[in-house]
Amino acid sequence: MAEALKVAIAGLGTVGAGLVRLLQAQHDVIAARSGRSIEITAVAARDKTKDRGCDLGGYAWYEDAAEMARDADADVIVELIGGSEGIAKETCEAAFAAGRHVVTANKALIAHHGLQLAGAAEQAGVTLAYEAAVAGGIPVIKSIREGLAGNRITSLHGILNGTCNYILTAMRETGRDFDDVLSEAQELGYAEADPSFDVDGVDAAHKLAILTSLAFGVEIDFKSVSVEGIRHITPDDLQYAREIGYKIKLLGIAEQGEQGVFQRVHPVMVPMSAPIASVEGVFNAVVTKGDFVDTTVMEGRGAGDGPTASAVAADIIDIAAGRGGPAFGVPVSALRKMPTLPLDSHVGTYYVRLVVIDQPGVMADITAILRDESISLENVIQRGRDPGAPVTVVLTTHETGEAAMQAARAKIEALGAVVETPRMIRIEPFEG
Amino acid sequence: MAEALKVAIAGLGTVGAGLVRLLQAQHDVIAARSGRSIEITAVAARDKTKDRGCDLGGYAWYEDAAEMARDADADVIVELIGGSEGIAKETCEAAFAAGRHVVTANKALIAHHGLQLAGAAEQAGVTLAYEAAVAGGIPVIKSIREGLAGNRITSLHGILNGTCNYILTAMRETGRDFDDVLSEAQELGYAEADPSFDVDGVDAAHKLAILTSLAFGVEIDFKSVSVEGIRHITPDDLQYAREIGYKIKLLGIAEQGEQGVFQRVHPVMVPMSAPIASVEGVFNAVVTKGDFVDTTVMEGRGAGDGPTASAVAADIIDIAAGRGGPAFGVPVSALRKMPTLPLDSHVGTYYVRLVVIDQPGVMADITAILRDESISLENVIQRGRDPGAPVTVVLTTHETGEAAMQAARAKIEALGAVVETPRMIRIEPFEG
Repeated sequence: MAEALKVAIAGLGTVGAGLVRLLQAQHDVIAARSGRSIEITAVAARDKTKDRGCDLGGYAWYEDAAEMARDADADVIVELIGGSEGIAKETCEAAFAAGRHVVTANKALIAHHGLQLAGAAEQAGVTLAYEAAVAGGIPVIKSIREGLAGNRITSLHGILNGTCNYILTAMRETGRDFDDVLSEAQELGYAEADPSFDVDGVDAAHKLAILTSLAFGVEIDFKSVSVEGIRHITPDDLQYAREIGYKIKLLGIAEQGEQGVFQRVHPVMVPMSAPIASVEGVFNAVVTKGDFVDTTVMEGRGAGDGPTASAVAADIIDIAAGRGGPAFGVPVSALRKMPTLPLDSHVGTYYVRLVVIDQPGVMADITAILRDESISLENVIQRGRDPGAPVTVVLTTHETGEAAMQAARAKIEALGAVVETPRMIRIEPFEG
Repeated sequence: MAEALKVAIAGLGTVGAGLVRLLQAQHDVIAARSGRSIEITAVAARDKTKDRGCDLGGYAWYEDAAEMARDADADVIVELIGGSEGIAKETCEAAFAAGRHVVTANKALIAHHGLQLAGAAEQAGVTLAYEAAVAGGIPVIKSIREGLAGNRITSLHGILNGTCNYILTAMRETGRDFDDVLSEAQELGYAEADPSFDVDGVDAAHKLAILTSLAFGVEIDFKSVSVEGIRHITPDDLQYAREIGYKIKLLGIAEQGEQGVFQRVHPVMVPMSAPIASVEGVFNAVVTKGDFVDTTVMEGRGAGDGPTASAVAADIIDIAAGRGGPAFGVPVSALRKMPTLPLDSHVGTYYVRLVVIDQPGVMADITAILRDESISLENVIQRGRDPGAPVTVVLTTHETGEAAMQAARAKIEALGAVVETPRMIRIEPFEG
C-alpha cells in the first residue's frame, strides 16, 4: 500500500469535528477504498480548550490556519472556516503556494473566487475540490463533472437551501406564517440568528453559480444571478398553490441557450407530480437535463455535520486514490465566457396574488392592463364577495414574458383599489 | 494534450450506435473534460450492411468481437453485446489478456462473473467499468463507489427495472390488468418479446447484486437474491394500495446487518410521500442510507440508447482522465464474504388480499390462523357483502416475521372458503 495521505483541517466547528470523527471511525474502510491510509496530522482553530466531542490528541495544533497551510506536515489542507474573504481565502492560497491540495466546503469562497483559486490549483499542479460546498448529502459536483461528462447539460434546477425548504415545508404543513416558522427554525438550529443569507436567496445563489460553471463549462459568474428570497411568501400562497396542483419551492435555475446563460434564484411553483416537489424539509435536490442522458434527479441532506463531512471525505479519498481533474471540469483557460441573460428574458406562466377592494370595475381595470401587455389569463380565483372590503384575487397566466409581467404588475399596483403590493410567483412546468 | 485514447466498440445495437453518435457529437467537449481526445478506432458486429444511423466509415470492422479485443488498435474495449456467457464474456477476457481496459453495460455478465472479471482486470492493471449496467441515466455506480466512499452504507432500495415500473405505473393510472399493459409495453418497445427477465425480477436482481457488492464491500452473490416479480399484481392491489396511502413498486432491497447481507427483489408498498413513490414510468431510482450522509436519492432513466451511452461515455472519460480504481471499490481480495440472510429473516408489515366465499365463520377462521402465528391486524377492508359468493378481503398487519406470514398464508389458502391463492405484498415504511 502507498504512503499515507496526510490531512490538515482548518476550522473545527460542527463540520470539522464531524470530519475528524468520520476519518477516525472509517479509517480502515477508507484505506481499503483509497488504496492508502488517510491520516490527520494537524488542525487549526482559535480555542484549544473547547470540547468538540472528538479526540484531537496527537494532531499538531495551529491557531493560524494560513500558517498551518504553509507549514504543517500535510498533503491536503481542508478549509472549513467559511466566508468568502479573509482567513479562509488566505488559507487556500497559502496551501496552493506550498503545493498542497485543497478541499473546501466554502460555497461563498468558491462562488466569489473559484476561478482564481482553480487557476492557482492548476498552476501548482494540485487539486481544488469542493463537493461539500453544494448539498453535502448529494455527490452532485462529482456527478455533473464526471458522471454526466458525456453530455451537454442544458438546464439545472435545484433546491439548494435547506433552511428555505424547511420553512416553506413547515408553512405549508401548518399554515403558519413566515416569521413564526423562521423563529422555530432558528430554535431548532436550521436557521442562523441572522437568516438573511439563507432566506434572501444568497446562499442558494452561491451554490447555483458553482453548479452553472461546472454544468455548462463557463466562467463562474455569481454577480449575474438574479436573486429573490422567500420572505414575501404567505400561507395563502401555499394554500392557493395546493388548490391549483402546485408546491412552492425556492429554486436555483440555470439554463444554457444560444443567447447565453440564464441564472436565477426565486420561489417557484412546481407541479405536485414533479419529483422535486416531494423533496421536503431540510433536504436538497438537483435536477439536471443532459442531451443524451435526459433528466437526472439527486436528493439528499443539504447540510449538517454528517453529510458535509461525508462530502469532504469523498474529496479527500479521491485525492488519496489519485483521482483528480480540473476544479470546474475543464482547465480554467477552457471555461467559456458566456453572456448572461437578465431576468427580463424569462418566458413562462405566472401566479399573481392581489388584494383589492371589492368594488365594481376593479377586475375590468386589471384585465384591461393584462390585455394591454398581451397577457392572457388561464385562471382567476376570487373566493367570496365582501363589497367595499379587501378581498384576495389570484390569477394564473398563460405563457408570457417577464418584462410584460413586471410592467403589468407596476400598473396594477398603481390602481387605487389595489391595496397591497401584488405578489408574483413564477410557475415551472417540469415537463418530461 | 496527451495522446488520444483509442476505443473499440463491440456490439452495434441501439446502445452501440448511440455511443458512436455521442462520441462523435461531443468530441470536443469530451476532449476538454478528459484532457485528451477520445477516438473510435474499431467496431465489431455481425451485419456490416445494416444502416445504424451513424457514420462508421474509418473504423476497422470486425465480425468477431473477441478477435477485435485481442487485435484492434485500442486502449479500451467497450462490450455492448449482452448476455452473461459466450462472446460477451470472451471479449472481456480477451481484452484483459491483451492489457486493455473494459467498459461494459452488461449487468448479467457482471452479476454472474463480476468477481472473476474484476480479478482479471486487477491482474492486468487495467480498469473494469460498468456504470451503464445499472440505471444508465443515474451515475449510481460512481456515486456509491466514490461520492459516498466516506460512509458505511447500511441499506439500499432501488427501482431497478424500467419495464416493471412502466407496467405498474400504467396499471395504476388506467386500471388495466397486467397482461393488457404488458402487451402495450411490448408494442412501445418498453418490454421484450420474452418479458420474463424483466417482469419476473431477474434483471432487477442482477443490478441489485452489483449494487450490494459495491455498497457493502462484499463479494457479489447473485444466487442469494430472493426474487419475486410483478405478474401477480392486479389493478385491485393498486387500488387498495392507493386507499391506504401507498404505491406499489418493484424494489430491489439490500440491507447489511450484523448477521449478514440481505438481498431481495419483490413488489413493495411504499408510502405515497416517500420520494421513491414519485418515480414513475420507465424511470429508475436508487435510495441509499449511509452512516454519515444519511439518505441519498438518485433518479433517472433506466435504459434507452441515450442514457446508456451517457453512462458508457462517463466510464471512458474516467479512463481517459486517469481516474481509475478497483471495480467494486476495493481490491477483490478485500471484498468480504458475508453470510446472506434468507427471505424468512425479514420482519415487517404486510398487505394480504384474499378472495373468500362470503359465509359465516370465514373471518373467524382467518383471524384464528393469524392469532396462532402471533400476527396482529392493523386494518381489514371488506367492501360490500354478497352471501354465498366470492368477495375480496384486504388485510394489513402490524410488524411480524416473514416465516409466520408464510405459514399463515399456507393455512389460509387451505381453508375451504378461500377460493384464490392469497396475495401478499410487503410494506416498507421508508421512515426518515
